[in-house]
Amino acid sequence: MSMSLSKSDLVPKFLINGYFGDNLPVTDRGLQYGDGLFETIKVHQGRPLLWSRHIKRLNKGCERLKIACPAESILAAETDRFISPDLDAAILKIIITRGSGQRGYKQPVPLRPTRIIALYPYPGYPESHQVNGVSLKLCVTPLACNPILAGLKHLNRLEQVLATTEWHDDIGIVDGIMKDVHGNVIETTMANLFIVSDQALYTPDLSQCGVAGVMRGKVLELAKELQLTVSERPLTETDVLNADEVFITNSLNGIWPVNQIEQTQFVPGQITRQLIQQLHLSWK
Amino acid sequence: MSMSLSKSDLVPKFLINGYFGDNLPVTDRGLQYGDGLFETIKVHQGRPLLWSRHIKRLNKGCERLKIACPAESILAAETDRFISPDLDAAILKIIITRGSGQRGYKQPVPLRPTRIIALYPYPGYPESHQVNGVSLKLCVTPLACNPILAGLKHLNRLEQVLATTEWHDDIGIVDGIMKDVHGNVIETTMANLFIVSDQALYTPDLSQCGVAGVMRGKVLELAKELQLTVSERPLTETDVLNADEVFITNSLNGIWPVNQIEQTQFVPGQITRQLIQQLHLSWK
Repeated sequence: MSMSLSKSDLVPKFLINGYFGDNLPVTDRGLQYGDGLFETIKVHQGRPLLWSRHIKRLNKGCERLKIACPAESILAAETDRFISPDLDAAILKIIITRGSGQRGYKQPVPLRPTRIIALYPYPGYPESHQVNGVSLKLCVTPLACNPILAGLKHLNRLEQVLATTEWHDDIGIVDGIMKDVHGNVIETTMANLFIVSDQALYTPDLSQCGVAGVMRGKVLELAKELQLTVSERPLTETDVLNADEVFITNSLNGIWPVNQIEQTQFVPGQITRQLIQQLHLSWK
Repeated sequence: MSMSLSKSDLVPKFLINGYFGDNLPVTDRGLQYGDGLFETIKVHQGRPLLWSRHIKRLNKGCERLKIACPAESILAAETDRFISPDLDAAILKIIITRGSGQRGYKQPVPLRPTRIIALYPYPGYPESHQVNGVSLKLCVTPLACNPILAGLKHLNRLEQVLATTEWHDDIGIVDGIMKDVHGNVIETTMANLFIVSDQALYTPDLSQCGVAGVMRGKVLELAKELQLTVSERPLTETDVLNADEVFITNSLNGIWPVNQIEQTQFVPGQITRQLIQQLHLSWK
């Protein structure tokens, strides 16, 4: 089956363990315990972008959670059932859970992971976000630190859910910066964060919490191609507010310059522009 | 509708938003983000035990997560559809999620929470657990600290899931003790923990992490009735291993003495016995 998604197709479509459907058993551990992982992938001109990186992260996450990751060939074949060459833009979401089980935390035997492939319409953020930048809030909701879950894009996302209740879209805020319980800046609710200070690039260390974004990994590579000095280390709020440039990255939106954090204004800068350009070149 | 559950009825039953069924929309935020809460309630001789305490905690949790909690009258009426006076023993599980929504962390508008009432067979642990005690493992998997989620019985339970992969039931271990990332003893994967030292009762402070169990609250009250000295404070592994008595509590099993933690043995003690007796009297 092949399909394309126009603006009028606003209803997401799901393939659950290979079958089209909208429902999941209530016994699924994804629901019961948030026991699983997900990937959110941009589809552009009939192609899921950064596919290999997404699959690699999914496998790594499954390994850490001790869930058998479905073979890439299965995920690719099921993704192909959604994506036709004329599909201009969409969001592909893959969810893997530990599957259904009896009550209780113990792993079900036998373990049959659930895979959900979903296609959502592309939200169509204003083009100006990438040109003029976006405004961010500093969230009060902290991120907990736990090395066993750090970096993973797992289904335990209550912290992000609570952080997004701290602002309203209608006052122009696009996302919120989250700090860990010790006050280190880690990421935004839906993106990773980079700063430029004295021509060098910095992004928070994610060994204790945060999601190691696929686009973050891509940008770190692009920065090396551009021979920029890059460092992953703890960043404070002061580091960020005093930076020359700030930008955020995720798989859906690529690189967005930040033009404001609370009362502090920023101008989208030279290094941010260079990286955006390098990213666009890498899609060719 | 009324029903009773015998050992042959091993299939759980679900009421989802008032309808019998086994499936939930895949867009439910319980699955997408673990965006919800749950209660696990013991049903004994046709009665859900400690009902008011469970409903109170559920309401408190919903308030903190900004989810509109269904009215107690609705939950009670739906519970009644499962429980007949001749239902000897079962487990009632209530799950409340933020409901279905579009992709993204932002709260759906309008917000229509999902309520799931489930009835499971009672697992029937050996009677000896309460008499002779149980053996616990010390888990390596740590609990993260986050005051905004501490105490809640929310659906983000990956830490507990990973901790239970650390042991096998077949070597006699019943549960595992979990410490926070700073090394403080907090709870077990499915129960709260108390120790007795020099005739005084201690249980970990739960302001940074852990689940504030309904049975924990009940036991704290019983201890006051018995005029025991009780204190909620940080506990170290050494505090626990050097204790005169150790016991664990949860809604399903009441109070279980601990007879072993790794290589350290304990004898179910006088104060533990007193509390078990007081708990049984309170059911009358």
